[in-house]
Amino acid sequence: MGGLSMNRREPVPPELYASLQDASRKLSTQTVFFHQAVAKSLGLNITDHKCLNIVLEMGRATAGQLAELTGLTTGAITSVINRLEKAGFVRRAKDPNDLRVVYVEPIPSNLQPLQDVFAPLGKAMAELYSRYSADELRLILDYLERSAHILARQTERLKG
Amino acid sequence: MGGLSMNRREPVPPELYASLQDASRKLSTQTVFFHQAVAKSLGLNITDHKCLNIVLEMGRATAGQLAELTGLTTGAITSVINRLEKAGFVRRAKDPNDLRVVYVEPIPSNLQPLQDVFAPLGKAMAELYSRYSADELRLILDYLERSAHILARQTERLKG
Repeated sequence: MGGLSMNRREPVPPELYASLQDASRKLSTQTVFFHQAVAKSLGLNITDHKCLNIVLEMGRATAGQLAELTGLTTGAITSVINRLEKAGFVRRAKDPNDLRVVYVEPIPSNLQPLQDVFAPLGKAMAELYSRYSADELRLILDYLERSAHILARQTERLKG
Repeated sequence: MGGLSMNRREPVPPELYASLQDASRKLSTQTVFFHQAVAKSLGLNITDHKCLNIVLEMGRATAGQLAELTGLTTGAITSVINRLEKAGFVRRAKDPNDLRVVYVEPIPSNLQPLQDVFAPLGKAMAELYSRYSADELRLILDYLERSAHILARQTERLKG
């Protein structure tokens, strides 16, 4: 970033680092609990829900892609897909160009419950954003993107 | 916050909100995947790991407190405590002032694997913090605390 601070040379008080670590840990714990509560309210477990998110982000995904992105075995992914299909959120579809390839794709008309669950969070986050200026939001975005990148690398390391 | 921005009146570009939502979602997904990878590397599942974190944060906790904080049934919490005890991270101990009350408490000498798993993340986060000024870090802290609070309330709502 840079350019935002008016007082870059102020030394960072050690207790600020401690507060940041504490806040990060709390946000992380709350994130996990929230996703567990979301999954439960949709009749899914947290892994099913995360795989559904991947399918939604990618538009469609193969079982192999889901296994790679989550670190789960293809056997475990098969169970995940079965549960998501049973819940009505996704369907299996063959690639018209290669009938050996099976994709998992969302069923858009069945995704309303998912949107209903997340709508109040989106509203609360929009209110939170409104507290900050454009420059402040750019700083927050920078921090969020870099944190996500760090976590992705740490996850890779653990899967080793 | 306030006071940080030099240009509070600049309208926030709509694509900045979209980027923030996208970054929040990605960070959230990476957080869940990271915690699953941590739990797996410790021989635990993600719920066991989160309960262990609660015990560490509180110093000690009863099964009832863990059930309340996680939204799990006391039956499910009993299984969690059994696994944590078997893995050597916690022990059950009676309250000397009321022998009917059983607390779960960490076994500090057995927590080294937990510290080893998180140390590289702590190092990477410390490097990230070093990119920002004290004022910028205070803004980030404000955002993290408010986000955690929002998620906690949303989780409460879902558990309804």
